[in-house]
Amino acid sequence: MRIVVLAGGIGGARFLRGLKRAVPDADITVIGNTGDDIHLYGLKVCPDLDTVMYTLGGGINEDQGWGRADETFHVKEELAAYGVGPEWFGLGDRDFATHIVRTQMLGAGYPLSAVTEALCDRWKPGVRLIPMSDDRVETHVAVTVPDSDSAEGSGERKVIHFQEYWVRLRASVPAEAIVPVGAEQAKPAPGVLEAIAEADVILFPPSNPIVSVGTILAVPGIREAIADAGVPVVGLSPIVGDAPVRGMADKVLAAVGVESTAAAVAEHYGSGLLDGWLVDTVDAAAVERVEAAGIRCRAVPLMMTDLEATARMAHEALALAEEVRGA
Amino acid sequence: MRIVVLAGGIGGARFLRGLKRAVPDADITVIGNTGDDIHLYGLKVCPDLDTVMYTLGGGINEDQGWGRADETFHVKEELAAYGVGPEWFGLGDRDFATHIVRTQMLGAGYPLSAVTEALCDRWKPGVRLIPMSDDRVETHVAVTVPDSDSAEGSGERKVIHFQEYWVRLRASVPAEAIVPVGAEQAKPAPGVLEAIAEADVILFPPSNPIVSVGTILAVPGIREAIADAGVPVVGLSPIVGDAPVRGMADKVLAAVGVESTAAAVAEHYGSGLLDGWLVDTVDAAAVERVEAAGIRCRAVPLMMTDLEATARMAHEALALAEEVRGA
Repeated sequence: MRIVVLAGGIGGARFLRGLKRAVPDADITVIGNTGDDIHLYGLKVCPDLDTVMYTLGGGINEDQGWGRADETFHVKEELAAYGVGPEWFGLGDRDFATHIVRTQMLGAGYPLSAVTEALCDRWKPGVRLIPMSDDRVETHVAVTVPDSDSAEGSGERKVIHFQEYWVRLRASVPAEAIVPVGAEQAKPAPGVLEAIAEADVILFPPSNPIVSVGTILAVPGIREAIADAGVPVVGLSPIVGDAPVRGMADKVLAAVGVESTAAAVAEHYGSGLLDGWLVDTVDAAAVERVEAAGIRCRAVPLMMTDLEATARMAHEALALAEEVRGA
Repeated sequence: MRIVVLAGGIGGARFLRGLKRAVPDADITVIGNTGDDIHLYGLKVCPDLDTVMYTLGGGINEDQGWGRADETFHVKEELAAYGVGPEWFGLGDRDFATHIVRTQMLGAGYPLSAVTEALCDRWKPGVRLIPMSDDRVETHVAVTVPDSDSAEGSGERKVIHFQEYWVRLRASVPAEAIVPVGAEQAKPAPGVLEAIAEADVILFPPSNPIVSVGTILAVPGIREAIADAGVPVVGLSPIVGDAPVRGMADKVLAAVGVESTAAAVAEHYGSGLLDGWLVDTVDAAAVERVEAAGIRCRAVPLMMTDLEATARMAHEALALAEEVRGA
């Protein structure tokens, strides 16, 4: 079975681990979000690709869900001593090596997809990991940073990098607009459209529907290829009980006028793209609304509390895909 | 008193520490060798500049004389896990930060001299440290790498980077030629010629006369400026008792046909450049030969066993300079 998964960072990576457990023999291609990539200290950092690679390759910091296990922070400590920031982005020493290798290879002319493949030669994630595009796409967020001593609502309107919004501001101010800069001009990386065309099933893990899966879909050709693939497309809600399972998806959903509910996210993807949708059992009441939107829906436990629970979620997603296929 | 010092790495840095102790109020400008700079992992590494900066700034690994104190090696460990070398060059995590900042600044268009000044803003070495040139100069070494299973003398003739000769091969094969590639086209960095012109005394510390001081002198204009400065130029022999005090200076002296003795090194610099020369007391017999070459010479203890001993050496050098000036 050939499965294509559109993955963001932590949620996508953990789901993938469950999927591999559920169907060890499946041929899994992961199309990774690169919209939250950032240049730091002259180095190219790809947080989502690395989270998938480290998680599936056994190098992840399990507690925080990103970054490396057994990590130290001496490089960052020294950069701060030089007055070189940003200090809000937590790159560890082991993690730095990945960015150094990547930057060196990019500088030598290799596209990001080839670099990612080379990095995965070490990590052996057990999936084929392809960045959504070899072109630079950067998610930017428009915010109004309140003046500390002025009337509410006033403040400076700024457009900042997604990482600055997410990591530095912790999404503490409303996102007024979210723009995947460069996406319109980007081309899918080699292998992306081919993998979609050859897939037996396409899955959207419980990743952020706007800044993770949404950014991948913003690369011209990818959404169309998925819609036209003629195979079941099944997603898992990242919203459980009207709140994101983790992260701050509600903040970015608000920016695009989507309410933070499992049903609204399904409707946001739409029946033109999505054939099936899993909501958590606490959101069973949403099933009817999702099905009314033309998307087959089931309520099952969606908390990735451990590998077995996650594998069961993956089984449910694949079962729903077969149901869609047989319908 | 304005003192200009031409410095290589460890020997130069330790001498400078003694010089600062000897004359705390002196205005010291250090012209640093950049011929052993190397690009590693896409980063610009300047071993001699950093050794001076770390030593005088209190960040050096005292035992080995180069690299940072309290160092870890996780970045390098991970690079090796990616199969990315070279493994023979020991960059630690804290040290990496320096190279990352430097590379980022160079990439942004700053010349090496400005970058060095910025790095020294943190370290406050108490001297003005200027690279000999902002232009790229790289010392290369011609060697014949013996075939392991063939007759002596046969082997592959190669030209390798000085660091590969020095660090990887540990100077274990004869250096057949030493070429500071790019030196002929290089210009002295801003401030170098001005510092020489305004100096009251110019010192050559017990650094390698070929690949450290010699490379600095190979930048067109520097040797001439020193010879024409009209102030005492005094050097300290890096050879004590016919062997280098540390390092492998004898290997590179042989390449240029200079015998490994305190007197021969003085003659190699020559009376056109050098006014005074200190040899170690064990080499007292060399004094006559050096003076016969037109260079005033004294035999004093030249082992930098501790800071006080080194400060006494600096005092002796300055005393010899005053003797030359009064002559």
